[in-house]
Amino acid sequence: MNYPFLFHPQVTPWFQASADTLLLTLFSERDTPIRHVWVRHEPDNEEYLIPMKPVSVQDRLQVWQATLPLSKVEEIHLYCFKCLTDETQWWLHGAGISSHIPPREQHLRFNSQHQPPAWVQDQVFYQIFPDRFCDGDPSLSVKHHEYQYGGKAVISKEWGAPVSPHEEGHGASEFYGGDLVGIDKKLDYLHSLGVTALYLNPIFDSPSNHKYDTQDYLNVDRHLGSNAQFADLTRHLHQRGMKIILDAVVNHTSTQHPWFCSPEGAHTNPDSPWRSFYTFDSNGDYVSWKGIRSLPKLDFASEQVQDAIYRADDAILRYWMRAPYQIDGWRFDVIHMLGERGSAKGNRHHVQAIRRAVKQENPDAYVLGEHFFEASQWLQGDQEDGAMNYYGFAHPIRAFLAGQDIAYHPIHIRAEELDRWLKLARAHIPFKNQLAQFNLLDSHDTARFLYLLGEDKQTMQLAVTLLLTYIGVPSIYYGDEVGLSGGNDPDCRRCFPWDTTRWDHALHDHYQRLIQIRRQRPSLRRGDIQTLYAGSHSYVFARTLQSDQVLVACNRHPTDARTLNLPLWQTASPASRFTDALNGDKFERVEGMLQVTVPANSARVLLSS
Amino acid sequence: MNYPFLFHPQVTPWFQASADTLLLTLFSERDTPIRHVWVRHEPDNEEYLIPMKPVSVQDRLQVWQATLPLSKVEEIHLYCFKCLTDETQWWLHGAGISSHIPPREQHLRFNSQHQPPAWVQDQVFYQIFPDRFCDGDPSLSVKHHEYQYGGKAVISKEWGAPVSPHEEGHGASEFYGGDLVGIDKKLDYLHSLGVTALYLNPIFDSPSNHKYDTQDYLNVDRHLGSNAQFADLTRHLHQRGMKIILDAVVNHTSTQHPWFCSPEGAHTNPDSPWRSFYTFDSNGDYVSWKGIRSLPKLDFASEQVQDAIYRADDAILRYWMRAPYQIDGWRFDVIHMLGERGSAKGNRHHVQAIRRAVKQENPDAYVLGEHFFEASQWLQGDQEDGAMNYYGFAHPIRAFLAGQDIAYHPIHIRAEELDRWLKLARAHIPFKNQLAQFNLLDSHDTARFLYLLGEDKQTMQLAVTLLLTYIGVPSIYYGDEVGLSGGNDPDCRRCFPWDTTRWDHALHDHYQRLIQIRRQRPSLRRGDIQTLYAGSHSYVFARTLQSDQVLVACNRHPTDARTLNLPLWQTASPASRFTDALNGDKFERVEGMLQVTVPANSARVLLSS
Repeated sequence: MNYPFLFHPQVTPWFQASADTLLLTLFSERDTPIRHVWVRHEPDNEEYLIPMKPVSVQDRLQVWQATLPLSKVEEIHLYCFKCLTDETQWWLHGAGISSHIPPREQHLRFNSQHQPPAWVQDQVFYQIFPDRFCDGDPSLSVKHHEYQYGGKAVISKEWGAPVSPHEEGHGASEFYGGDLVGIDKKLDYLHSLGVTALYLNPIFDSPSNHKYDTQDYLNVDRHLGSNAQFADLTRHLHQRGMKIILDAVVNHTSTQHPWFCSPEGAHTNPDSPWRSFYTFDSNGDYVSWKGIRSLPKLDFASEQVQDAIYRADDAILRYWMRAPYQIDGWRFDVIHMLGERGSAKGNRHHVQAIRRAVKQENPDAYVLGEHFFEASQWLQGDQEDGAMNYYGFAHPIRAFLAGQDIAYHPIHIRAEELDRWLKLARAHIPFKNQLAQFNLLDSHDTARFLYLLGEDKQTMQLAVTLLLTYIGVPSIYYGDEVGLSGGNDPDCRRCFPWDTTRWDHALHDHYQRLIQIRRQRPSLRRGDIQTLYAGSHSYVFARTLQSDQVLVACNRHPTDARTLNLPLWQTASPASRFTDALNGDKFERVEGMLQVTVPANSARVLLSS
Repeated sequence: MNYPFLFHPQVTPWFQASADTLLLTLFSERDTPIRHVWVRHEPDNEEYLIPMKPVSVQDRLQVWQATLPLSKVEEIHLYCFKCLTDETQWWLHGAGISSHIPPREQHLRFNSQHQPPAWVQDQVFYQIFPDRFCDGDPSLSVKHHEYQYGGKAVISKEWGAPVSPHEEGHGASEFYGGDLVGIDKKLDYLHSLGVTALYLNPIFDSPSNHKYDTQDYLNVDRHLGSNAQFADLTRHLHQRGMKIILDAVVNHTSTQHPWFCSPEGAHTNPDSPWRSFYTFDSNGDYVSWKGIRSLPKLDFASEQVQDAIYRADDAILRYWMRAPYQIDGWRFDVIHMLGERGSAKGNRHHVQAIRRAVKQENPDAYVLGEHFFEASQWLQGDQEDGAMNYYGFAHPIRAFLAGQDIAYHPIHIRAEELDRWLKLARAHIPFKNQLAQFNLLDSHDTARFLYLLGEDKQTMQLAVTLLLTYIGVPSIYYGDEVGLSGGNDPDCRRCFPWDTTRWDHALHDHYQRLIQIRRQRPSLRRGDIQTLYAGSHSYVFARTLQSDQVLVACNRHPTDARTLNLPLWQTASPASRFTDALNGDKFERVEGMLQVTVPANSARVLLSS
């Protein structure tokens, strides 16, 4: 199927929202015999077609515009474009172009309310697993055999010693001594890397090294530091203009939480004041997260749970958003599973309520959800600002570059499939939320990307280029930037190697340079994204915001360079001269096209000048 | 992209539902190197992969099965299939096959509750616009200039006289005298055609010929007959084992309804007992349907409206479902627009409540929604049983055969695009609801299909073949079966030509024969649907239910026959001998394949024997 060129820019000056209207623009090719264009929308569930006017011609580009009235009832406004030739019709929608009307969920969408905070899109996040980043105060560290966890004595290990294999079952009970003071000490390092925001894995009191089994939500784990030290850390971050978000693990608690295990706790006492916090069956057995007995699931049908977690004035989520901590947002663990009576029932209602409580404390807080898979239903504005973007970034990039899916099964896709996959994932999410998606290559829950690549650092640089230039806010998992490797959990949680002789400096410099470019270039942070080429091994997109433009051209082929002729005229950008950000090569647009050769297994980042 | 063969049958014995499990089956090709297959589902919003077992081999077919536990919380169960080779993976979902995980809305879905009544799928509906079908009692007919409508004297016309062109503005105020007695008199005709169920356009008291502006919901319009005559009609229908559904026009009333216009009515009286029935702005102006001033919109935020329409014991919808009428269901006019305060707000809630009220009167009633466009969100079980299937049937078939869309704009698609479009439309709807979709070629709201075809009766026969063999319940718009033509409303509402010399008898016989086949063949009413071929001009699908199988092979090419080799082995059916239902040609399966030549501009219907 040969589709004509059609594109809908979603940034100024082409896209402008007022309280009750949207100015919408469509680009087509001047020589395509398109006679009429309409915006289709369903403000009251009924179809209306609003004619677009041909307003200008730029080079080979025909520009169409129309103003869409916004429904006062709906918060999400869906629309798409119908283009008519003398013989047939083409529809432009969120997932691409089709020869017939697209289904509703592929319509483009504008979120007129509950937009993500603007600061999010400007960040470069850095994810830290606290026990493994830096040991700033060895006196705090867990001592060997200090206590029992899961029936075994905890283990204290030397910094950098190998993580025990999963099979040995020490995954959660061995400690290396990383702490908050360590993070605080490394702020200069992070700052020089270009990082602007931190996401910390859980830091509250918990017997495990990962701390996803909370036993006290109001105190920092004593082995990581004190509440006062955390206040110091957030103050230091904010003094540098940096942000911090914490991990909210409120789907379940530890069995060691007093709500559950104290003499008055829910577990053994049917008359417990916290009995309603958990779900018990007729035999008195409790519901736990995915059947893991150490993680009893909280019941959000309980008003007490709602109060304790988010609703009451002294709710946990509110507590850490206030002075002296004032964290800038929350990353919610397995938020899709949260719900009533041991299930995900009522999930939407509770996530909406959590959002309201968080935004009440700070309208500019970032509400980030953890979702390994599609999160579109939480990203329509009323629930989350963004999701950990496994579904729409990590999975497709992993498939394209590492040939593996999230279950480590083989998957092989061409660049054109990568492009369709990325578009399909974006299609279900309002543009503002796309900008606030939390993009990542890996995390504490997956093998490191470098490991998946068989330690191929050249391809890793290609992946990093995509991470730092794709739409959404990038997050770097601690150590990735120096070439730290590791298989699936727990091996992906190795200690940060502070001995710089062990670093891959080229990789580190690559991160640093791309972060710098991202911070300099508004188009990378807030710009449109437009595919210029997607073939077998090569994929090229433009990020455009007014006069600023960055082109990202990648070629995964292991041995062959690829020369591409890119239709820059499609972007409506005035940019005509470009410089390769990594090696200084110069490029010039000729008659709307830009010819570029991308070497094997690499990416070029071309900056407009 | 070359995808392997994969199919998921959704009928017994391959698909079996119990209260808490689903037996699921996947077909693959034996020689495809698929090593593992999983069912993917998200019962608590978290992904689970259930391994499928290779249970048997049939010819070239590999059969995989697994049992899926059903969530107790969800009413709709979403799933898809992941297939792994040594090199890559394939996913089978509702809309087809992809090289990566499909988005959630393309997952297959099982509606475990609120299933459509089983009788619906066995019907052949016949839609009657009462003023134009048959004048059974001329004494009832509107008299020339009997009253004023829309500022003009109403017009009485002779049966069969041309309908006034739209431009003259008599569309709604000219009458031909059709009535309920006329319908009653033609039950033998309908019975001999094979029709089993009627859908009547509105029959309640209203000044227009279309009666979409109701002035009394509890009385049949006196020009169509009396309530007693309607009771007679329904009794006669039920005596024949036939069904009837009526048009529920409850989004708006006529301005002539006493709620609105009586001295105590809402229009001019702010203290009216019915003031809350409508929505008034601060100037006292009322909200009307699409701005048409004669159709003030009801406000479902009003408990009085809820009571009057569906909730109270004497609600309108309940009234006609009880003796002596006992209608078998309702077709709800513009149901997607119904809502609160002049908008579609709260639509889902009210449609759910309407469904509950209707099912309370008769759990076996058919809840049918009118939607010109996608209705998937109303077809998940909790709202409608089926929709007037413009979106998933009429529009694609019209595009494929008539080259026009619903706005009469040109559209040209290949058969493979038709197939993808039909699949995409089905993908969002549970299989049981697909079987209860109300398929149509045309209606009182569109040009007649024959007219769109430029009176090409051969292509019309092809279209009729698709209507009567595609998944869903077919509806014939009165007169289509004898070759009645007509452009868009009001021309599509011409009088039924009872003079049989004016009939296209070949077309009539074609309808009759296909209806007969549909009624004889359970696979056409309840069977699976499986595409066997889709190319440029030719499209072939199988309907299969256990040992019963019907193959439908169509070729729209105007001059060239097409010989196809159909992979019957993909259907797992034991059928090997087939007879062309229309001309008796015999066919035999050889090594899993069936070779068939389809003449130009025609369709074959091959019946297993």
